[in-house]
Amino acid sequence: MVVKVYGTAYASPKRVLVCLIEKGIEFETVPIDLIKGEHKSPEYLQLQPFGAVPVIQDGDYTLYESRAIIRYYAEKYKSQGTELLGKTIEERGLVEQWLEVEAQNYHPPIYNLTLHILFAPALGFPPDEKVIKESEEKLAKVLDIYEDRLSKSKYLAGEFFSLADLSHLPFTQYLVGPMNKEYLIKSRKHVSAWWDNISNRPSWKKVLQL
Amino acid sequence: MVVKVYGTAYASPKRVLVCLIEKGIEFETVPIDLIKGEHKSPEYLQLQPFGAVPVIQDGDYTLYESRAIIRYYAEKYKSQGTELLGKTIEERGLVEQWLEVEAQNYHPPIYNLTLHILFAPALGFPPDEKVIKESEEKLAKVLDIYEDRLSKSKYLAGEFFSLADLSHLPFTQYLVGPMNKEYLIKSRKHVSAWWDNISNRPSWKKVLQL
Repeated sequence: MVVKVYGTAYASPKRVLVCLIEKGIEFETVPIDLIKGEHKSPEYLQLQPFGAVPVIQDGDYTLYESRAIIRYYAEKYKSQGTELLGKTIEERGLVEQWLEVEAQNYHPPIYNLTLHILFAPALGFPPDEKVIKESEEKLAKVLDIYEDRLSKSKYLAGEFFSLADLSHLPFTQYLVGPMNKEYLIKSRKHVSAWWDNISNRPSWKKVLQL
Repeated sequence: MVVKVYGTAYASPKRVLVCLIEKGIEFETVPIDLIKGEHKSPEYLQLQPFGAVPVIQDGDYTLYESRAIIRYYAEKYKSQGTELLGKTIEERGLVEQWLEVEAQNYHPPIYNLTLHILFAPALGFPPDEKVIKESEEKLAKVLDIYEDRLSKSKYLAGEFFSLADLSHLPFTQYLVGPMNKEYLIKSRKHVSAWWDNISNRPSWKKVLQL
């Protein structure tokens, strides 16, 4: 069964794509145009009532929320492709901890930067300079804590690549690329080495080529 | 080994307590006074570098982020106490989806309401009426989607109580209690029945008595 992934032009669905590639799972992509409002169509809202991307369909199983989808496939295909949840329950606990840190601490400021720097023009509202400044300060503080963590272990959850690292790829790519804020990463030695490492994985390069 | 749970006077750590009670796991509580800034002490930051509650210590294993901790214990003690992750990988997928909905859609507006209505005076800043109004509107829209979902299944992830429901308990308790906004729940038939059901579980009543 080929997995259908909706909305893959955007960042969050790319979490799902990189996970599927790491696990060696076949998929096809279904475009959803947020600018045209396709995520608010009645058909789409049947799949994802909050009108967000991504959604996956896998036979008659439908699932949304990118971090839920990547946990589902990492568990369902545990013994296939890259192990993304750690080997023990204790390692998985740390993967979950850093996935939550990404979702609760890293994502809100980087999402605000993305929205106000990259998408405000297309969405027709003026970028809020105060939000941009505060978000960058918040993100810098989070990255200081990452720097300390990554001085002690190669990856966020330990000595193994996991969903916790993977989940950072799409929005950090916006940060170092179109947002021109690579200095936030490069100025921190261990964060910089970690980013070079995870962003050079063949799975991520493949996602960027899609 | 008795699990030590830090900061249990506050809402997020109560997610951990209700989970431990559902699973029949012994614990002791360690008070952390946020008003006095105990979460910013060097000792505490060693345990939780972001300065947030809760943290648990279980022997030499330390874990933070409430939703990571509840996943850890629900998995570690899968066959003990209440099954909180569903019986199949597909059920767990839906538990993860609704845990993410709670974290990403439900929590931000209810957290803002809590901060501006309940904690602004103690924290010494004036409540922002615009934030309060917008947060209530956002929460109401999320609850409309919950109403539809709960008209089709007894609990969020299906016909079984799970971490997804449990994770809503602490902040919704603030909403219906000290915030005097019970009408947001009571005005929605299926949300109201779900709340009556989950908030009357012996585990939650025990947390409220602690």
